[in-house]
Amino acid sequence: MNIEHYQAIDRICDYYYALQESKFPVLPDVEPGYLRPLLPSSAPKSGENFSQIAEDYQKLIVKVLTGYTHWQHPSFLAYFPAGFSFEGILGDLYASSVSNPGFNWLSSPSCTELESIVLDWASKMLGLTDSFLNASGVGGGCFQNTASEAALVAIIAARTAYKAAHPDTKLEDMRIYTSTQTHSLGLKAGVILGLTVRALEVTREDNFSLRGHTLRSALEEDKKKGLHPFILIATIGTTSSGAVDNIAEIRTVVTDFPDIKIHVDAAWAGMALVCPEFREMCYLKDINAIADSFSTNFHKWGLTNFDACPLWVRDRKYLIDALDITPPFLRTAQGDAGTVIDYRNWHLGLGRRYRSLKLWFVLRGYGVEGFQKHIRKAVDLNKVFVELVSSSDMLSLCAPPSLALSVFRINPKPSLNQATLPENALNDLNKLFYGRISVRKDIFLTQTVLNGQFCIRLAIGSAFTQDVHIREAFKVITHEGKLTLEAYDRLIPRGP
Amino acid sequence: MNIEHYQAIDRICDYYYALQESKFPVLPDVEPGYLRPLLPSSAPKSGENFSQIAEDYQKLIVKVLTGYTHWQHPSFLAYFPAGFSFEGILGDLYASSVSNPGFNWLSSPSCTELESIVLDWASKMLGLTDSFLNASGVGGGCFQNTASEAALVAIIAARTAYKAAHPDTKLEDMRIYTSTQTHSLGLKAGVILGLTVRALEVTREDNFSLRGHTLRSALEEDKKKGLHPFILIATIGTTSSGAVDNIAEIRTVVTDFPDIKIHVDAAWAGMALVCPEFREMCYLKDINAIADSFSTNFHKWGLTNFDACPLWVRDRKYLIDALDITPPFLRTAQGDAGTVIDYRNWHLGLGRRYRSLKLWFVLRGYGVEGFQKHIRKAVDLNKVFVELVSSSDMLSLCAPPSLALSVFRINPKPSLNQATLPENALNDLNKLFYGRISVRKDIFLTQTVLNGQFCIRLAIGSAFTQDVHIREAFKVITHEGKLTLEAYDRLIPRGP
Repeated sequence: MNIEHYQAIDRICDYYYALQESKFPVLPDVEPGYLRPLLPSSAPKSGENFSQIAEDYQKLIVKVLTGYTHWQHPSFLAYFPAGFSFEGILGDLYASSVSNPGFNWLSSPSCTELESIVLDWASKMLGLTDSFLNASGVGGGCFQNTASEAALVAIIAARTAYKAAHPDTKLEDMRIYTSTQTHSLGLKAGVILGLTVRALEVTREDNFSLRGHTLRSALEEDKKKGLHPFILIATIGTTSSGAVDNIAEIRTVVTDFPDIKIHVDAAWAGMALVCPEFREMCYLKDINAIADSFSTNFHKWGLTNFDACPLWVRDRKYLIDALDITPPFLRTAQGDAGTVIDYRNWHLGLGRRYRSLKLWFVLRGYGVEGFQKHIRKAVDLNKVFVELVSSSDMLSLCAPPSLALSVFRINPKPSLNQATLPENALNDLNKLFYGRISVRKDIFLTQTVLNGQFCIRLAIGSAFTQDVHIREAFKVITHEGKLTLEAYDRLIPRGP
Repeated sequence: MNIEHYQAIDRICDYYYALQESKFPVLPDVEPGYLRPLLPSSAPKSGENFSQIAEDYQKLIVKVLTGYTHWQHPSFLAYFPAGFSFEGILGDLYASSVSNPGFNWLSSPSCTELESIVLDWASKMLGLTDSFLNASGVGGGCFQNTASEAALVAIIAARTAYKAAHPDTKLEDMRIYTSTQTHSLGLKAGVILGLTVRALEVTREDNFSLRGHTLRSALEEDKKKGLHPFILIATIGTTSSGAVDNIAEIRTVVTDFPDIKIHVDAAWAGMALVCPEFREMCYLKDINAIADSFSTNFHKWGLTNFDACPLWVRDRKYLIDALDITPPFLRTAQGDAGTVIDYRNWHLGLGRRYRSLKLWFVLRGYGVEGFQKHIRKAVDLNKVFVELVSSSDMLSLCAPPSLALSVFRINPKPSLNQATLPENALNDLNKLFYGRISVRKDIFLTQTVLNGQFCIRLAIGSAFTQDVHIREAFKVITHEGKLTLEAYDRLIPRGP
């Protein structure tokens, strides 16, 4: 053992102390290609001392040039948060140390068994029905790499089930359904599988939520054309605005289309289910009634370092029928006897990381109450931001705030002599506005487009974000907003 | 900071000291379902102290019940080795600490840039042509989750390229080619994508290597039927016997079939390319001439803890054309300008782990010479085992030894009054033999079937395996072999 091994722990702690106190900006100040000239062009011929390696890491990557975008920074308000906790880091450290591809029970009993137990804990904590428990022996949960792969696996399982029931169906005639607000994971899955995705329209009036009647008419229309609808990806908490698809209405529709499978992607908002008060708005009851699969990311809002994305299914045969290929060299006595879970048949690859350990550590370290506190804190901070926006003459929300996410834009009240800006001009204005914000390094927000409206997202969730950071962010936003408006007015004077 | 954080480092070191000295057996002595009764059925309501969590981890998972299969144990001779090094563990620890989904350049410049540099180092170390370098601006390397996903991504890219050139092709008519010895990743990719895989026959006489004439006649036959061959998965070092497909002959064939893409899966044996003396047997020159993509696992024989699987492509557009979906919320100024790599368009998911850091640490810690030493040591140990088998009256090899892998079975020389055993009896005998070996906990080997012949694999590669462990393994094998033969002779007396 060398001092550098302890040093890693010290340095990680130092990093988080510095983050907590915002000792450096959230975004790095580096240009594309900055790193290559700083490193040799090939691996060294002979091995080097770890102390030299660790120093270079500090010097070239962490410290001087700060090439990281700091997702745990208090002013990281972009995309969705990336979870972290010391429990998670240490769980991952122990997991790395037993470098183990864990693809079947025998390849490491603890890895499989802990995953099956811990995902039951997680399932119960989120209020999912017992059908999704590994202990049920029928349903169960399994880590996937990301929410994208969880959706992909669900689609593959649904396609296989549909083809088993309707063997003559051509792949070209099969249809995946999403809404236009579904994350690109839906479209990407279509591209990966060579299948057509139909993205159903949602409206501003419905808060960008997929409604039952929209789904019904699309299904009827496509069936009439001889097409084969086989899965709907419904979203709890879309990326653009946190919209929640109307699972209650969808539930009514799909009773008339029994061949359609339902995958619920709750990558970000699923974590809010730990709080009873958010379960109704997330349609938990209906999810429990109809979802064939459900996925959420503990590595987003769930205090766990990347990656930790469980997928739960109501019937494990759904996955295994689609993904089980067992060559002789992977056969084991326990697998043949059917007494164990061989998780390799529940996902795309063969080898799999040992992710249950960190989730076990995190669930124990925080407890259900710790998770609830973490979620409620971010939702409350978002209320602070929403109040500030509501009191502003310049900014307005583009959709109702959703949990810890707000979407807003500049939409200035015209002065006495000014005309209201048309939508395309507002979009141009907001692009300028976001352009100003996005070159700053002290705050990180992301853009989106909601049914043609260019807007800016503010997503809260870092464990370090406090009231003061939200107020500071609002100050920065209004400052840049004013400068944008001044510049815009100089460029395109409004009014008579 | 708590003492438990340092303690994790201490305990990991203790674990490896104990492993090195074989202080516990390679396989755990636990029954399916052992863990569930030892843990509560739900997550705790309130958070717990880390010291309690760490103690439980030691008590329930690591120590008392040793529920792990120890892949780094000197007597782990199953599957293929799982790499590890302290440099890798510490690199992963630092990476966990910046929990970062790294899906595009802006989401963390260092993550993307280090990956593009370090995979160039790796590519050069393996002797791949400069076309595969990220620095080329045309080709490049990118981490995938596993070799399975690398092959899957290659197939998706090839399918997209083929469909772009031949838009009316039905998916049902498209064909993937593998050999019957290709890893199940080929079949699984077919199942995932809903595409047909044709596994080409290989013979014992050809050492289970795919020959050019076999490929040519299959392609001609299928083209005549109106089918659309679009990719061949060629293997360098198959899982069952370490066979190497004849890329030189394949190279000649595919000049006549320009639409066929070639993916080279060298998951295990690819690491041997660090040694110049193994490059010819692995057809490196021909790989460099024709492979559209190439993949190998640093997390197998490459000293790096799971996972670390690069995929290199000759033309990055090959991947991006198939996998780029950019919604507004993922757009960045740098991405729009085309000045950066956005790795999310090179693989299946969106978020991605920061794996370059550990590979950077490992490549620096060992240097090219350290890798060469590690590979040569395992190959030399396999020579020891092969010599022992050759000197045995009871055992024989089922295929030529390949690098650090040997495949063998009992094939006893008949005594004076005994008849030679027919193949099916030999298979029964060897199943009994493997049954005896597989209930032992002190040694771990795996089974396979080579063109109908049941055999046993012995794969060397743990950093801790020494001459003494191979000789000990041989002793155990011959001991169990003798007992198997005695039992078999009592059951089915041979000869008159």
